[in-house]
Amino acid sequence: MRLLSVHAVLAVSIPFLGFAPGPLAVPEDTRSVHDSIASKLVDIGLREGEAYSMLQELTSTAGHRLSGSHGAAVAVELTKQMMISRGFDNVHLEHVMVPHWVRGPVEEAEILASRGRTAVPLSVCALGGSIATPEEGVTAEVIEVKSFEELQRLGRAAEGKVVFFNRPMDPGKLNTFESYGGAVDQRSRGAIEAAKVGGVAAIVRSMTLTLDDVPHTGQMNYADTVRKIPAAAVSTLGAQKLSKILSREKNVRVRLKLTCETLPDVPSANVVGEITGSEKPNEIIVVGGHLDSWDKGTGAHDDGAGCVQAIEVLSLIKKSGLRPRRTIRAVMFMNEENGLRGARAYPHAAERAGETHIAAIESDRGGFAPHGVSVHADSLVLEKVRRWISLFHKLGAGQIERGPSGADISQLVQRGVPGFALIVDTQRYFDYHHSDHDTIDKVHPRELEMGAIVEAFLCYLISEEGL
Amino acid sequence: MRLLSVHAVLAVSIPFLGFAPGPLAVPEDTRSVHDSIASKLVDIGLREGEAYSMLQELTSTAGHRLSGSHGAAVAVELTKQMMISRGFDNVHLEHVMVPHWVRGPVEEAEILASRGRTAVPLSVCALGGSIATPEEGVTAEVIEVKSFEELQRLGRAAEGKVVFFNRPMDPGKLNTFESYGGAVDQRSRGAIEAAKVGGVAAIVRSMTLTLDDVPHTGQMNYADTVRKIPAAAVSTLGAQKLSKILSREKNVRVRLKLTCETLPDVPSANVVGEITGSEKPNEIIVVGGHLDSWDKGTGAHDDGAGCVQAIEVLSLIKKSGLRPRRTIRAVMFMNEENGLRGARAYPHAAERAGETHIAAIESDRGGFAPHGVSVHADSLVLEKVRRWISLFHKLGAGQIERGPSGADISQLVQRGVPGFALIVDTQRYFDYHHSDHDTIDKVHPRELEMGAIVEAFLCYLISEEGL
Repeated sequence: MRLLSVHAVLAVSIPFLGFAPGPLAVPEDTRSVHDSIASKLVDIGLREGEAYSMLQELTSTAGHRLSGSHGAAVAVELTKQMMISRGFDNVHLEHVMVPHWVRGPVEEAEILASRGRTAVPLSVCALGGSIATPEEGVTAEVIEVKSFEELQRLGRAAEGKVVFFNRPMDPGKLNTFESYGGAVDQRSRGAIEAAKVGGVAAIVRSMTLTLDDVPHTGQMNYADTVRKIPAAAVSTLGAQKLSKILSREKNVRVRLKLTCETLPDVPSANVVGEITGSEKPNEIIVVGGHLDSWDKGTGAHDDGAGCVQAIEVLSLIKKSGLRPRRTIRAVMFMNEENGLRGARAYPHAAERAGETHIAAIESDRGGFAPHGVSVHADSLVLEKVRRWISLFHKLGAGQIERGPSGADISQLVQRGVPGFALIVDTQRYFDYHHSDHDTIDKVHPRELEMGAIVEAFLCYLISEEGL
Repeated sequence: MRLLSVHAVLAVSIPFLGFAPGPLAVPEDTRSVHDSIASKLVDIGLREGEAYSMLQELTSTAGHRLSGSHGAAVAVELTKQMMISRGFDNVHLEHVMVPHWVRGPVEEAEILASRGRTAVPLSVCALGGSIATPEEGVTAEVIEVKSFEELQRLGRAAEGKVVFFNRPMDPGKLNTFESYGGAVDQRSRGAIEAAKVGGVAAIVRSMTLTLDDVPHTGQMNYADTVRKIPAAAVSTLGAQKLSKILSREKNVRVRLKLTCETLPDVPSANVVGEITGSEKPNEIIVVGGHLDSWDKGTGAHDDGAGCVQAIEVLSLIKKSGLRPRRTIRAVMFMNEENGLRGARAYPHAAERAGETHIAAIESDRGGFAPHGVSVHADSLVLEKVRRWISLFHKLGAGQIERGPSGADISQLVQRGVPGFALIVDTQRYFDYHHSDHDTIDKVHPRELEMGAIVEAFLCYLISEEGL
């Protein structure tokens, strides 16, 4: 497009303020103070923000940050230094033991040759937590299923076979997390369900809406009562190829080889830093993300974004000259992806210190343009936050609604702390999630920064007005 | 992130419906019909939508579509065929003469060598409408200014010089169109203002918030009363280099060579197709974009996106089995970028036919995730459309606000027709706009399709309920 007139363009930014003010409405003079602070945060963030440069440093210096890895250890020190160099108060590590699963050097699969057809390689990767195959790999006939019900109906027909779970994420959902939620059972429980009927390995279609040749990893689980079998993700193109061959041939066999293993737990840490509240220092508002990632790509969106945004929140508040009444604390949680150890340890440290947590905010849906805030709390808290809708609307983030918060703050929410999650645009997330595609070039500097700005504004409002 | 529970994820999609219903509120049973139609459009669009495949075809078959170019002529025939093959009614061309400016094979610039420094090439491109330089190029000293006021203060000091306009787009605005609006005067009027003070050429910093080496073109203008001088855009990295050298050296000279020219007008056309209204066929709802583009990149976002979305709107309505009461008409307007000839011609054809236009909708802000609808109309129309906020909110597009519509429908709006524009996320648009970066790989299939779905729903609501 070109420009009709500057006047016309400026009119684009006139917000819709047509919400009827209810009994809880924010008084006009307070609203105008809040408004000017929101503008200041936008101005400083979009002009001088450091979320993207921090993310560049994190993803290039630490690389991937799977729990127990060298990258995770580097990331702990690096984010601690980022907090110290920005003058945060009380910067420290909270130690925690974490699982240590490693992928190993070999992960390969192929559809074995049959009459008139050469072998077809499949792009696969081990699912997180999987055992290795025997050294020679697993070679067996494949059966394809779309659901656990279908698998159970097959019963012993699956015995001795590789079970191929091929139900795609449903593209017909506006919210891609809904599509993910409708397919991810195959990844998380596929190996259990396959073993129950005598399967020897599980191959799961990658959790993505795109069609490409990159497999997406993610956590899988075993049950104590069922034999452990190896489990891998296959790219969506690979899934398509395999399914096509299965539809045309009988007794199709694959060979799968994985060399992953689980080593003993290793020490790691949550990284914590804060701006101590000027009036109520023992009332804490946590803002965080998880510092660990999967070992595919460099976890730029998942969840490097949420970590650097949390640091940026405190940084923006300091640069804006605000002195929050309550303590605003950035927490880089360790081990969200395959254990939640950091999330589980955090509340104990906080309880020992005699602190009261009044809110916990997480960004763990990627560093995309923020649309609003999901409120995981009592209805009265939701009502309170809704008072601020028109303020958030001006930040393009007026979607204030009841919903889940985040895995890292779930332990606080279970203890009654109001939980909040940044709602962002979801369309691109699963293109990258848990795969080699989750790298810094998929993050837009302004979208990432806007997320930090919205979180900073939420922290400030809660700090000043309580909940 | 990983998944806490399917239940929790599904809760993300619970919309906020806390808007107090006013006297104009939509009755509950009607709302539920509307809701189910919105769901159907989402379902069909996200599963079977063709907006992206049409855009692939348009950008690969026609390429760029600058008015008067071969690509523009190909695009006219191609989109006509797309409408015919989808069974639209009354598919036809409305002929119009358009300007024919061509870039020419040479556009180059360099900062000439000086003592201790070799020549520095600059990445430039002619601004649309510029005259050529003399064959040997323009070689002259450069002066840098940030505004027309600064230039006027310099007065005759600018005589005989190349004027370098280097005021960046302001990154501190949330809405990037606002940043654009605050800088684009340099491109549109720079050559006029430079010539007024005796300048021999204008070089304008590209209109983008990114720092890279790709120049962004766009329309420039001449005034009858002032000498015409050549005008080029320089990449933001080039602008930075030039500015740095100017800050360190005196009498810095550049050489600029452009071979662009304006040829005689050529025939072209708007492309029109519709679904004839079942009850009020002479009441027309226009939905459109502009088929022409600049000759950098392939105009995927600007405005291939808006064109294929308009075709997709009608296609979605047909696939959903809806029979709209009023006529819904897709229009591919020709020559938005450098003349608006198609936009100016369209209302005359419509008036001759005795039609009444009750609404005109344009998508021309890129094929990004839709946030809502800008309403360029009387307050009573705005009130009417606001009745539908909660419906649009479920599509992630609840931002219904007063604002500008679009250049192509401006002639209808001037005649009193309510105008609407799709509001989309603006953060990435100017990274690509009018440059070699505006290509299909920058468009996300689901974001593009969601824009078409929101437009289709708006067309349907207006068709059924009027305005």
